[in-house]
Amino acid sequence: MLKANKSCIERLYRYRNTLIKLKSIGFVKVFSDNLADGVGVPATQVRKDFSIFGLSGNKRGGYIVDELIEKLNHVLGKNKPVSIIVVGKGNIGSALVHYKGFEKEGIKIVAAFDVDPSKTGHTDDIPVLPTSELKGFVKQHNISVGIIAVPDAAAQQVADVMIESGIKGILNFAPIRLNMPEDIIIHHVNLELELETIIYFVNALNRKVKQEPKQWIEKN
Amino acid sequence: MLKANKSCIERLYRYRNTLIKLKSIGFVKVFSDNLADGVGVPATQVRKDFSIFGLSGNKRGGYIVDELIEKLNHVLGKNKPVSIIVVGKGNIGSALVHYKGFEKEGIKIVAAFDVDPSKTGHTDDIPVLPTSELKGFVKQHNISVGIIAVPDAAAQQVADVMIESGIKGILNFAPIRLNMPEDIIIHHVNLELELETIIYFVNALNRKVKQEPKQWIEKN
Repeated sequence: MLKANKSCIERLYRYRNTLIKLKSIGFVKVFSDNLADGVGVPATQVRKDFSIFGLSGNKRGGYIVDELIEKLNHVLGKNKPVSIIVVGKGNIGSALVHYKGFEKEGIKIVAAFDVDPSKTGHTDDIPVLPTSELKGFVKQHNISVGIIAVPDAAAQQVADVMIESGIKGILNFAPIRLNMPEDIIIHHVNLELELETIIYFVNALNRKVKQEPKQWIEKN
Repeated sequence: MLKANKSCIERLYRYRNTLIKLKSIGFVKVFSDNLADGVGVPATQVRKDFSIFGLSGNKRGGYIVDELIEKLNHVLGKNKPVSIIVVGKGNIGSALVHYKGFEKEGIKIVAAFDVDPSKTGHTDDIPVLPTSELKGFVKQHNISVGIIAVPDAAAQQVADVMIESGIKGILNFAPIRLNMPEDIIIHHVNLELELETIIYFVNALNRKVKQEPKQWIEKN
């Protein structure tokens, strides 16, 4: 199973989300073309992804929506809720704690941690604890996934403590490269970098339009 | 220039950020190996990326830090600040408005928009305007990049208005696929999907450890 890469797993989640939407509007059966349209990939990709996980349908009759959702839930381990923690209760950390999108996917933020005593206490929807209690909490509650939402300068130290505590997967919002053991799964969300690359390509596009106005007009 | 892909541009930003850090601790000269270490890529990649943009150094003497930062700033268009807008002033939108990371990269959020009248008004650091004023504002201020931080159901409509107004680049936080003209640059930050794939791979890792305990022990 580990052979499937991140993009493939992301597509499986997207197929599942598309199926849930199609089910909500009354679909009972779907074809790989329907899923391909919903996710924006070729139908051959859908069939290829499904074949990796032994997800088969009736070629003529397509897939039964309920059965396929069930199978995808099984493959993706979506049958049981997952508890995670957030370290850093600044702007991003607070937004994540209040973000509605996680809970409907069975992901529950059960605690936030911060070094700032003015932020800790049980005043929010979930406990906000001092970072010194991180290790004990993670071990006690057997947490395996955490989010880093602390400033750059603190990120590596927080990551080290998380890993010592037994955390195996990290979503990192600090715009900095972290040194990690090889068996830790880490994804980065670098907001500055996302915006900067968009700005770069928009500027490049503008230059292109200025340099090649004719081609541009023809294209449109 | 448009031939450089997103990963290449992201690396250029990372080289630049590494250079700024090295400069702050007193570096005057760097070698491609230093940049490679800082960014976590092979030195050959650094030289390859630089050659695409004609960024050359003295092979023996490396690169002069100040000159290289200046050249990268020019390539990346970092010499002038960029004004952007955010649509949706919920948890994520509010966090972005207060996020400190953008301003130091010369990116300024100049206005936020929301349909909810209770959220609009000039009470925040920046004006929060009704979404009905989006089009006029974008045109008047010649904004070309915007962030979508509205719920799924509203995202496509917001995207359409943004594009009609002249926006060319979008960072989308709504976990939904948006239909876009081909000349629009769009990046997605899908927080649910990031966490879900981390959880998937952590679970897969746990299964692997259980199934192959011997190999695991040997590996460690």
